Amino acid sequence: MRTITWNTGSQCLTYIDQTRLPAEQVSVETRSVTRLADGIQRLEVRGAPALGVAGGYGVALSCLSHQEEMAPAFRESVIRDAAHLRATRPTAINLTWGIDRVLQTALQENTPAAAYAAALREAQAIEEEDVALCHRIGEFGAKLLPDTCTVLTHCNAGALACVEWGTALGVVRSAVKVGKNVSVLSCETRPLNQGSRLTAFELQADDIPVKTIPDSAAAHLMRKGMIDAVVVGADRITPDAVFNKIGTYMHAVCADRHNIPFYVAAPYSTLDLSQKESDITIEERSREELAVCGGKQLMPDGVPVVNPAFDTTPLSLVTAIITDKGILRYPYTELAEHDERVET
Amino acid sequence: MRTITWNTGSQCLTYIDQTRLPAEQVSVETRSVTRLADGIQRLEVRGAPALGVAGGYGVALSCLSHQEEMAPAFRESVIRDAAHLRATRPTAINLTWGIDRVLQTALQENTPAAAYAAALREAQAIEEEDVALCHRIGEFGAKLLPDTCTVLTHCNAGALACVEWGTALGVVRSAVKVGKNVSVLSCETRPLNQGSRLTAFELQADDIPVKTIPDSAAAHLMRKGMIDAVVVGADRITPDAVFNKIGTYMHAVCADRHNIPFYVAAPYSTLDLSQKESDITIEERSREELAVCGGKQLMPDGVPVVNPAFDTTPLSLVTAIITDKGILRYPYTELAEHDERVET
Repeated sequence: MRTITWNTGSQCLTYIDQTRLPAEQVSVETRSVTRLADGIQRLEVRGAPALGVAGGYGVALSCLSHQEEMAPAFRESVIRDAAHLRATRPTAINLTWGIDRVLQTALQENTPAAAYAAALREAQAIEEEDVALCHRIGEFGAKLLPDTCTVLTHCNAGALACVEWGTALGVVRSAVKVGKNVSVLSCETRPLNQGSRLTAFELQADDIPVKTIPDSAAAHLMRKGMIDAVVVGADRITPDAVFNKIGTYMHAVCADRHNIPFYVAAPYSTLDLSQKESDITIEERSREELAVCGGKQLMPDGVPVVNPAFDTTPLSLVTAIITDKGILRYPYTELAEHDERVET
Repeated sequence: MRTITWNTGSQCLTYIDQTRLPAEQVSVETRSVTRLADGIQRLEVRGAPALGVAGGYGVALSCLSHQEEMAPAFRESVIRDAAHLRATRPTAINLTWGIDRVLQTALQENTPAAAYAAALREAQAIEEEDVALCHRIGEFGAKLLPDTCTVLTHCNAGALACVEWGTALGVVRSAVKVGKNVSVLSCETRPLNQGSRLTAFELQADDIPVKTIPDSAAAHLMRKGMIDAVVVGADRITPDAVFNKIGTYMHAVCADRHNIPFYVAAPYSTLDLSQKESDITIEERSREELAVCGGKQLMPDGVPVVNPAFDTTPLSLVTAIITDKGILRYPYTELAEHDERVET
């Protein structure tokens, strides 16, 4: 089953609503750009690669919903929808990348009908490419893991963050596929618990041994010798830093102290070589995410929060970046030089 | 208002049920050792110094409830109750310390009535001493903080963890009292959120600026220069390590990386100089704490957890230990030598 795909029968986008996992497995079907934008904002669909696919289909949905407009108005409407979609998650590069790739394709066409057809084809191409590239990431990364090991992961960079297979969890799946004995410690990943809700869910479904830990226990377990490698995903990689779910940086600092390899697994499209860490806005999320859980009040009224969605890990703490084009290694001179040479 | 005290009118122990904060402020009144042991286990009363007081009153309650027994049976019953209380939280030294101090006093008496009277006096003495020592810890610690600063704290080592004033938060309160401009970042402290529920609650009540952050955001905020000092409590301090709430170690590692002072504030009775880190069992808590929050299922059924209540921070990462007898500093030769010389 795919996390996000196009339903050719009913001509609509369909994706698993990840806010309802693991208690319920429910899919959203929509033709509305507003509904999709809201779903992205609320993390019904999340994860860097899946956001690229969602952004692409969002542009296709925009083209579909403005078919009755004259060409210049159509063009303006689609550009406006694309900007709306882009603004939902400012830090993740793949969302913008997917939107822009499909938008560019659509705007080359002369009629709304042709633009819609081209946009849909391009979004479907992104979806298929994502499946293939996750498998390539997995195969490259599997070589880095010992034959028997415990991997720490944070958040969900799995099948649910992509179309299928996953990036960080793709590395785990590919290692298991070639016969390695891998078990996973999944950080619960506050405040929205994507680790305990999603990573534990999809690994259990694949019979890969997984245990959930509080985010704050990882360093302690590293010190006790219970973690052999850290593998996480990325939402954006600049030539100086990895942007990923809040907590990634602390794991990198603690892994460094304990000489544990720290790997980032991400599509090559996650690399943003034109910018620096300081250019990127880190999305600040709502107080509600920390103040309430399952109807239980966790904080007194009136106490504010600091709730950044992401943090930044300097590349000096990253042992290797596993991409679909191959493995990049410290000191990442290829990134500084803005070219595409990688070790494969 | 005191977190835990003896109600002389109704002759029972009364304490604030901390599991219900911040939504409800409710006190438990009990004369039952079993009820108290259950409350300690469920963290209705928690925090190292408060556990010392609770343990002391627990022995007094035991003496009260066995008044009808003959002296030898009385003695056995009280010793059995003390063992039951001691087993509720194996890692915290103050609980055992409070129990043993009151038990020793009670067992010196010849009649159940005299034993109860002596036990109650001794438990009340521990309560009064705790108030005084928290103020001494606060005064010593306040000198270590800059005139204007943001302090990171983890879990709750505040008034709610003691009788009043607090240890780590006692340092903050004393600094504010002498005119320093201190604001606090309170880690939510998974899985039971003592930071967001309790630390935020009691600092807000005292008009001390406090914001809640996910545990995983602390390292990122250190890197951004937003944290000037870390102050935490301790459940036990051996000559080689500080035992405190899970997550303390990761904060210490990250503070070290960012050259941020890392302070531990605790009563001198928290020092356990007769043992080493490796001698102490770290309490493992239930799966339920990570699997469910406010009725919301956070994990799929069947996925196990690793849920240690505490971690251990080597003293090499601790800038200073602030006790009621003065300040101990790295390299802590006094601890290795098992004597009581401290810098005051």
